[in-house]
Amino acid sequence: MALTRAQIKLLQSLKQKKYRQRYNKFGVEGEKIALELLTASPRKVELAIALPAWAEENRKLLESSGVPLETVSGETLEKISSFQTPNKVYLLVSTAPASPELQTVNTGLSLYLDGIQDPGNLGTILRIADWFGLSAVFCAPHSVEWANPKAIQASMGSFFRTPVEYLSLAALRERHPALPVYAASMDGESVYSASVPAAAILVIGSESHGISAETAQQVNAWLGIPSYGEGKTESLNAAVATGILCAVIRGKESIPG
Amino acid sequence: MALTRAQIKLLQSLKQKKYRQRYNKFGVEGEKIALELLTASPRKVELAIALPAWAEENRKLLESSGVPLETVSGETLEKISSFQTPNKVYLLVSTAPASPELQTVNTGLSLYLDGIQDPGNLGTILRIADWFGLSAVFCAPHSVEWANPKAIQASMGSFFRTPVEYLSLAALRERHPALPVYAASMDGESVYSASVPAAAILVIGSESHGISAETAQQVNAWLGIPSYGEGKTESLNAAVATGILCAVIRGKESIPG
Repeated sequence: MALTRAQIKLLQSLKQKKYRQRYNKFGVEGEKIALELLTASPRKVELAIALPAWAEENRKLLESSGVPLETVSGETLEKISSFQTPNKVYLLVSTAPASPELQTVNTGLSLYLDGIQDPGNLGTILRIADWFGLSAVFCAPHSVEWANPKAIQASMGSFFRTPVEYLSLAALRERHPALPVYAASMDGESVYSASVPAAAILVIGSESHGISAETAQQVNAWLGIPSYGEGKTESLNAAVATGILCAVIRGKESIPG
Repeated sequence: MALTRAQIKLLQSLKQKKYRQRYNKFGVEGEKIALELLTASPRKVELAIALPAWAEENRKLLESSGVPLETVSGETLEKISSFQTPNKVYLLVSTAPASPELQTVNTGLSLYLDGIQDPGNLGTILRIADWFGLSAVFCAPHSVEWANPKAIQASMGSFFRTPVEYLSLAALRERHPALPVYAASMDGESVYSASVPAAAILVIGSESHGISAETAQQVNAWLGIPSYGEGKTESLNAAVATGILCAVIRGKESIPG
C-alpha cells in the first residue's frame, strides 16, 4: 500500500503553521527522535513513513509500537520533508493538548517566553527546560509555534517531555497568583547574588524586542547576567541567557549557602 | 560610479569559503554591525555597498570613516548577499590575521572548540566569549570558518572583538605549557563545585562527535553541568553549554567563597 496523492498533499500542507493548527497534526523527522517516539511517546504517533531500508532495519520496533507504516521512495520523502536534506523517516504525530501539569508549576521553576521568534531558539530552550527539570514552558501568544519543524529539530526530543502552553502572562498569574515573577534584563540584579525561590516564573524577552510593556507590568524582580567584557556586547543570545539563568538558579538550590 | 561586473563577480564568490580564503576578504551584512564597523573597526573595511537611501541617511558616518562607498540597487545587493532577505548595507572587509593577544591568554580563560560545525553556534560562542571577557577562542583546524556569513551574523559584532585562531590543541599547549586544560563532558566533575583557576583553557566538543580522542589526550580535568531532569535529555546545545560553563566559572571568580 502506498501513500495516496491526497495523503501526500496533506503531509505537504503540514509544513505550514495554519494546516498544523487546522489538522492538529505535525511531522517529526530524524532517526534518533523517531526511535525515541516509537519506543515511548506521550503524543499519538499516527503514521510512520520511511525509506524501505530504514523500515527493514527497524522492523521489530515498528511492529511492537503498533504504529502503521508506509514505505516511500526518497523522492516522496523529499516532497513531504521540511528540510533540504530529508531524513530516512518521518512520523505523523497528533498535537496533544499541551496543558502543563499544573501541580508542578506551583512548586517548581517555569519559563515564560515573551514572544520568542526564532524556532531554533525555542527548541534549544525546550532542551534547556528538560535538562534542568523545569515545570513548564509558557509562551506569549505571538511567540513562534512549538510544532515548527526547526523548533522540533533543535529541541532534540525535548518537545514531548516539556509541557508548553501559549497564554498571556496576566492569565498565567491569575492561575498561579502566589508565584513570584522574575525577568531577565540587562540592568537586573546579578543572578549570582539574587535569591530566587524554588517555585517561580522566569520571563525571557524576545530576541529583538525584549520584554513587552504589558508583560513588564507583571514582573516582580529583574535578574541580570554580569558582563565581564569591555561592555561592548549588547546582549547574549536568548537561549544562552536562558541556559545561564537556569544553571545559576538551579546550582544555588543544589549547593546551599 | 557603479560596481563593475568583475567586482560583482568577486563579491559573489565570497559566499564561498575557498574564495574568502583566497582573497583574504569577507562580507559583513546588516545595519547594526555596519554602523559599528564604520565607527571603529580593528579590521580594514575596504568598501561599503549600500542602497541609496541608507547611504544618504548615514552620509556623515560614511564620510568620516573614509571608507569608499558604492550605492547599488536592491537587485544588485540581492546578488551579493548570502541571505534570502538581504540587508540595506554590505561591507567588504579584509581578513586581518586573527592572532590572539598571547599576553592575555596566559592570564585569562580561553576556549578551545574541538570541531564546532554549525556556524550559528560558532557565532553565538564568540558572543559569549566577548560577554565574559575571554582571552581568545581557539578552534580545531576542521572547525567551521569564523568568516562564514551565518557565523558573522550570529556573533552580532563579537567576531571583531574576540581573537580567533585555528590550530591543534597540542600546538596550543606547546605555546602555553603552564595552562591547565579543562573539557566539558557529561560525566565530568560538577562545574558548581570544581575549582577552575583564572588562567585556563576550556575545551568544548563538536555538536555531533564531542571531543576527539586526539584532543582528549591533552585534557587535565573534565567539567560537567548537572542535569535536574529525568535523565532523558542527552545533552545541551554546544553554545548553551559553553555559556553555562563560562557563567559559572566567571561567577565563582567574582564571588569568592
